[in-house]
Amino acid sequence: MTYTFAKRTTGLRSSAIRDLLKVTEMSDMLSLAGGLPTPDSFPLADLRREADRLLGEYGPRVVQYSATDGVTELRQWIADEYTSILGRPIAVEGEIVVTHGSQQALDLLAKVLVDPGDVVVSESPAYLGAVQAIELFEPRFEVIPGDEHGMQVELLAERLEAGLRPKFVYVVPNFHNPSGATMSLERRKHLAALADRYGLLIVEDDPYGAIRFHGDPLPPVASFTNRVVYLSTFSKIVAPGVRVGWMIGPPEVMGWVARAKQAADLHTSTFAQLLLANVVGRDGWLDAQKARIVPIYRDRCDALSDALESTLGDQIRFHRPDGGMFLWSTFPNIADTTALLHHALQAGVAFVPGNAFTIDQAPDSKARFAYSTLSPNLLGEAAARLANAVAKC
Amino acid sequence: MTYTFAKRTTGLRSSAIRDLLKVTEMSDMLSLAGGLPTPDSFPLADLRREADRLLGEYGPRVVQYSATDGVTELRQWIADEYTSILGRPIAVEGEIVVTHGSQQALDLLAKVLVDPGDVVVSESPAYLGAVQAIELFEPRFEVIPGDEHGMQVELLAERLEAGLRPKFVYVVPNFHNPSGATMSLERRKHLAALADRYGLLIVEDDPYGAIRFHGDPLPPVASFTNRVVYLSTFSKIVAPGVRVGWMIGPPEVMGWVARAKQAADLHTSTFAQLLLANVVGRDGWLDAQKARIVPIYRDRCDALSDALESTLGDQIRFHRPDGGMFLWSTFPNIADTTALLHHALQAGVAFVPGNAFTIDQAPDSKARFAYSTLSPNLLGEAAARLANAVAKC
Repeated sequence: MTYTFAKRTTGLRSSAIRDLLKVTEMSDMLSLAGGLPTPDSFPLADLRREADRLLGEYGPRVVQYSATDGVTELRQWIADEYTSILGRPIAVEGEIVVTHGSQQALDLLAKVLVDPGDVVVSESPAYLGAVQAIELFEPRFEVIPGDEHGMQVELLAERLEAGLRPKFVYVVPNFHNPSGATMSLERRKHLAALADRYGLLIVEDDPYGAIRFHGDPLPPVASFTNRVVYLSTFSKIVAPGVRVGWMIGPPEVMGWVARAKQAADLHTSTFAQLLLANVVGRDGWLDAQKARIVPIYRDRCDALSDALESTLGDQIRFHRPDGGMFLWSTFPNIADTTALLHHALQAGVAFVPGNAFTIDQAPDSKARFAYSTLSPNLLGEAAARLANAVAKC
Repeated sequence: MTYTFAKRTTGLRSSAIRDLLKVTEMSDMLSLAGGLPTPDSFPLADLRREADRLLGEYGPRVVQYSATDGVTELRQWIADEYTSILGRPIAVEGEIVVTHGSQQALDLLAKVLVDPGDVVVSESPAYLGAVQAIELFEPRFEVIPGDEHGMQVELLAERLEAGLRPKFVYVVPNFHNPSGATMSLERRKHLAALADRYGLLIVEDDPYGAIRFHGDPLPPVASFTNRVVYLSTFSKIVAPGVRVGWMIGPPEVMGWVARAKQAADLHTSTFAQLLLANVVGRDGWLDAQKARIVPIYRDRCDALSDALESTLGDQIRFHRPDGGMFLWSTFPNIADTTALLHHALQAGVAFVPGNAFTIDQAPDSKARFAYSTLSPNLLGEAAARLANAVAKC
């Protein structure tokens, strides 16, 4: 006899990217598929020193059970950081929940907010991990297309005017995964104004904001309205495998999130939280870390962009991102990039076809290239292999 | 404007124990409430040595993203350990998922198995964390009473005979939280036979099995049938705040669990997994750790049991547990132990009233005493304070 599963498991798609990662472990494959941070960005010596200090000097509390919303030291760091970034006081108690990566934040939010059939607004293309987490709770996705300036908020305004009432609006305003786009200041303000006008909740997911190549940071949507749950993480700027992220939001929402977190896993690893709080809490540490890692990603972005332009010419179209890890491109002569992927894998290069980032997964001409893990030289070689694959399509 | 939450949040009760923990942080309060492992059981020096080795010698992969089902080193250790315990080969691939504590295993199982209204069988009294995790997915709980030999499986057999078809049966067979009971060998075999006969899925939660004071370990239900998802954790025998547990089960179930895990938080902390795999993987380490910590809990169990018998006499009834952290008792002259708790807190001692461990939360004469965190002397003092409180009821 076999087992019967819950209806919601029909919404449990496997990640095309995770599946691809298995292929990319083949030797000599150059992967532009997974968006892993580059290993040389990890501050191993700092982590080692603080781990040693914690386990040697702090006593047993570093590995004991701790509060569901997070250890005080880390919540204090987050409160200080965002009081400055958001321009309003963020409280250590009630507004912050530390999560097991920001992926968990999406699971917890969908869990406490979404009944089957509820509307959730998402950009298209969309971060696949968010779609996976939210889809389990059986929403109806209302898709608003994005362009190189982020979600087209003016289209959302029209649908709200026509009566749309979503449970929340999910956006990734900085260096979007996969589109690379950054939402314009005007659209951020407009989105915040819509939240206030219609009583919306915005979920602002910002894992990449610190990795900005050019220009000044734009203020988060959360700096223009309180009706935002803001998510971020140490995954891209310190180390992803430690699994620590955070949420900041209205106390009413965060209270339910904390209860759901308690039921989901009691709390995030005490040791991991204290480790990161001690590493990033040193005066000037985070600025120095950003100064060290941002140029790595900027150089790689430039290398891949240059190589794609010179090898593929008008067979590819893309906007260079202002930061982050992803280059989103269109192949005007290729109707379905999964066919291109087939040739690319044979040529020794992997990427993710665009339809992996859509709700309906219909074939399209798009592709996501992650430039985060290969050196500039290898990115050049990857572009050359890709050009061979394009020639065979 | 405020927010609208999902219907399932009505099932999100806060943990009476977690709420109580705030009270117990008051100075001079002796807490028999929370079931924290004793801090002197934590192998801080071993954790420190392995953390240093990992961050110094292993390179960046220790803090990089890793596989959703767990790092290979830890899954290999789990597979070896349970191939021996269960008496059948457990595969490294497909049967194991490493979780963020075993609390997460309950969330993932409920998520992939339970549609609203589905029947889940639970013992009464029940582990509150399991009720919290499962309740969110809106099951109908079918409660089977336990006695000092665990869930009364013969009552379950009657209900199955009458047509009951649960999505799963949740049991804690070793040193149950809160009841302290250990399921008899006969009932384990009977439960396994029922699983095979009716095509049931058993969820066997075993966080405390290694903390046995007397006698030989009983074989897990999972050693008598494959229709079991078996859960355990490093929380009670190594350290809870690192947050690493594991699940072993049928590949069909574990495949869906792995997808749900990916959506929930991508994977459990790479660093935490490697840290624990390296600590427990040393030859003979786990046996030595058990030999060190089991006597601590045994002495405390004896101290509290002796003190309660001598101070309260026939005003209290309990069975001494064979292991674990909890003593479950009945006050024959007290109809509602929440009234007793009120007096106890004034007398400077905390515990958890029995109704916190029931589905309906109706007042009862029961109480759970955790002897895990206080020294034998302080347990004696706690019993004396409790006797004062009982005298006022």
